[in-house]
Amino acid sequence: MHGYGEVKEDLIQRLRRIEGQVRGVQKMIEEDRYCVDILTQLAAIRAAAHKVALTILEAHTRGCVARAIQSSGGEEAITELMEAIEFFTK
Amino acid sequence: MHGYGEVKEDLIQRLRRIEGQVRGVQKMIEEDRYCVDILTQLAAIRAAAHKVALTILEAHTRGCVARAIQSSGGEEAITELMEAIEFFTK
Amino acid sequence: MHGYGEVKEDLIQRLRRIEGQVRGVQKMIEEDRYCVDILTQLAAIRAAAHKVALTILEAHTRGCVARAIQSSGGEEAITELMEAIEFFTK
Amino acid sequence: MHGYGEVKEDLIQRLRRIEGQVRGVQKMIEEDRYCVDILTQLAAIRAAAHKVALTILEAHTRGCVARAIQSSGGEEAITELMEAIEFFTK
Repeated sequence: MHGYGEVKEDLIQRLRRIEGQVRGVQKMIEEDRYCVDILTQLAAIRAAAHKVALTILEAHTRGCVARAIQSSGGEEAITELMEAIEFFTK
Repeated sequence: MHGYGEVKEDLIQRLRRIEGQVRGVQKMIEEDRYCVDILTQLAAIRAAAHKVALTILEAHTRGCVARAIQSSGGEEAITELMEAIEFFTK
Repeated sequence: MHGYGEVKEDLIQRLRRIEGQVRGVQKMIEEDRYCVDILTQLAAIRAAAHKVALTILEAHTRGCVARAIQSSGGEEAITELMEAIEFFTK
Repeated sequence: MHGYGEVKEDLIQRLRRIEGQVRGVQKMIEEDRYCVDILTQLAAIRAAAHKVALTILEAHTRGCVARAIQSSGGEEAITELMEAIEFFTK
């Protein structure tokens, strides 16, 4: 059981909304909409994906990482957590 | 006619792939997949959306902005371009 | 003469302030200050450096890039501009 | 005693290098150096500041946060950690 279990429904709904936004951008391009409006939409998609990632990161830290720290110091869990943070903050 | 006209098909295909990736993350969450793998996928989505934005930004600069500069100095077009850059680099 | 000529003094002052902030973080570390406060300061430094970059980018676009577009279409100047944007938005 | 105690000297040296880079950019502007070269330097400064932040974040997690989790569950320490991550990934 992962840390995000409790917020699963919320996460899936937010991802469905992001999916809809991505489809919306496709439509904007098909309809030759103005470049800057499309850029604004893409920035919104990135921000929304980032927020989903932060929610999962928090749930992961409160769940998996905290458990690993309590049971065995969590050395490896923290190394992996940092790699994930480094990766998604690029 | 916008600057991205020539790469329209390519952009739509890339957005369809992003849409598929977003659906993939929903499935990962439904299947209780490991948090760090989900974070990696979300980072990939953000990177892909960023690349689409860069392509549109380039087309916009070569098209709309360059035309505005040639016809009337482009003061306003550059102001708007900078706002777009500032917004999506946040 | 580069685009940033007119805002040179302002840019140098902002960079001096950033230099002071970087020295401030050194002092915080020497004094064993709390990690989260240091992280906040580092985020402020990054944001300030980003704003300086945006100012230079804007001046560059209004100056060098606009001139290149007016005199010869600006193909290369725009390619270089995009590489700079891609690089500093990473 | 904070988590970064062991890497204190390394952190201070890296910050001195960043300080030098910031002074270098001031000099570049005074000498009217090419905009794109300055942007590249500013991107390098931001990347270096980000790496220092990641090092402190890791030390903080292995130190303060892990201790808080072991002694009392770490609820608050994790909330604060997430706020720090959210802030510096903006």
